[in-house]
Amino acid sequence: MSFTPGSVWLVGAGPGDPGLLTLHAARALAQADVVLHDALVSPEILAFAPQARLEAVGKRAGADQMPQLRINERLVSLSRAGLRVVRLKGGDPLVFGRGGEEALALAAAGVPFRIIPGISAGIGGTAAAGIPVTHRGLAHSVALVTGHDTTGALPEIDWAALARGADVLVLYMALRQMGAIAERLLAAGRDRAEPVAFVSEATTTRQQVVVTTLADAACVAGTIPKHLPTLIVVGPVIALQPLLAVCQPEGERHAA
Amino acid sequence: MSFTPGSVWLVGAGPGDPGLLTLHAARALAQADVVLHDALVSPEILAFAPQARLEAVGKRAGADQMPQLRINERLVSLSRAGLRVVRLKGGDPLVFGRGGEEALALAAAGVPFRIIPGISAGIGGTAAAGIPVTHRGLAHSVALVTGHDTTGALPEIDWAALARGADVLVLYMALRQMGAIAERLLAAGRDRAEPVAFVSEATTTRQQVVVTTLADAACVAGTIPKHLPTLIVVGPVIALQPLLAVCQPEGERHAA
Repeated sequence: MSFTPGSVWLVGAGPGDPGLLTLHAARALAQADVVLHDALVSPEILAFAPQARLEAVGKRAGADQMPQLRINERLVSLSRAGLRVVRLKGGDPLVFGRGGEEALALAAAGVPFRIIPGISAGIGGTAAAGIPVTHRGLAHSVALVTGHDTTGALPEIDWAALARGADVLVLYMALRQMGAIAERLLAAGRDRAEPVAFVSEATTTRQQVVVTTLADAACVAGTIPKHLPTLIVVGPVIALQPLLAVCQPEGERHAA
Repeated sequence: MSFTPGSVWLVGAGPGDPGLLTLHAARALAQADVVLHDALVSPEILAFAPQARLEAVGKRAGADQMPQLRINERLVSLSRAGLRVVRLKGGDPLVFGRGGEEALALAAAGVPFRIIPGISAGIGGTAAAGIPVTHRGLAHSVALVTGHDTTGALPEIDWAALARGADVLVLYMALRQMGAIAERLLAAGRDRAEPVAFVSEATTTRQQVVVTTLADAACVAGTIPKHLPTLIVVGPVIALQPLLAVCQPEGERHAA
């Protein structure tokens, strides 16, 4: 796998634990001239590119540090300068990561690019917290949903249909909208006692898991600092969490 | 991260490309005494554990090679013999991989275990094929769904609700049920002209992508060999595929 000067690789950094980088991601970082990274990517992961210039370009809990169009332009101009450019994004670049938009901008500009998928926090991060997003007999379907559109408002989704169609819901960036979402799920017939898990800073040494019910989810969401990257899982699979977490010695599952 | 003798690690092998193994997975394989692996895991990936005894235990296109209960028992007995056991599964162990069941069996037996997430084919594999499962303005929600339950029948899902609630559907192991699923999605109002992509052997050098419409999806499903691991994506995001695939030189995105 050769990283040609003048090309851009859109790389997923995974949920947080540096050990969950892929081999491709680690090699890309080791070869990069410049790394444009989300603010949420940790210093431990950036340390895989000691030779590269680092540029933080966004985003922190939904607030853009640099507008998307400027990120796109920066990627094009750095590649035209003949550099090996890594665009490093938390999780997977194409799961609520706007990687598709960046790839389209590169394609339009004729810049060669590759997409290196990463583990999306909504799946791998929940696994590390002992929550299987599917489970025979409990969950045949899981929906990954964003909690806000680009204006911060609740996205245009048929929440009632989603409530009936998906056994498990994994909500990204939904702390601020949890009240509105819970209201819609309850109105569509989900049970007030259905378990809801908040997983903050998944797979890192700072991971925190709070389990509550759908009835209390809005209240609990209000207690979690808005700057923490937090996944919210709604579904019966959360009942397995105490069983699946018990045999993973504390600390060990986080160590690199 | 130390791999204690007598413990079991449930490890996701990712979608197929060995470069999409995680660092944790590669280290686990290098330390294992025995690797119980799905039949679909490639020799290139098993080569990361040259010192280990390899045991193929299932599954190939939904057909169990070894019943789940026997796999669970085998994991327990190997760990009780003091071995470092890797249970290696394609994709992510907890996404339609029955890893949760294995973990519960280990917990019940008091065997220490860890879960190492992997890239699920339904997300990373589709990315490698140029299909972003989310995209601003096109997809705020994506549902991952299994195409059959343990008897091979269509799972009990409110397909009409899912059709209205999820912008994108990613169907796992659904070749045989594509006709029944397409019928339900069309009855719920999805467009006959909506694009459907079949991605076989995603991220490997043998990857094949076939794009059709929802109206023709059942017919196309019938032309794909049933033994090929194939993901089916339904949604407007597939329209981006020709644009996103164009700048990834043929072959390069697959090389390790």
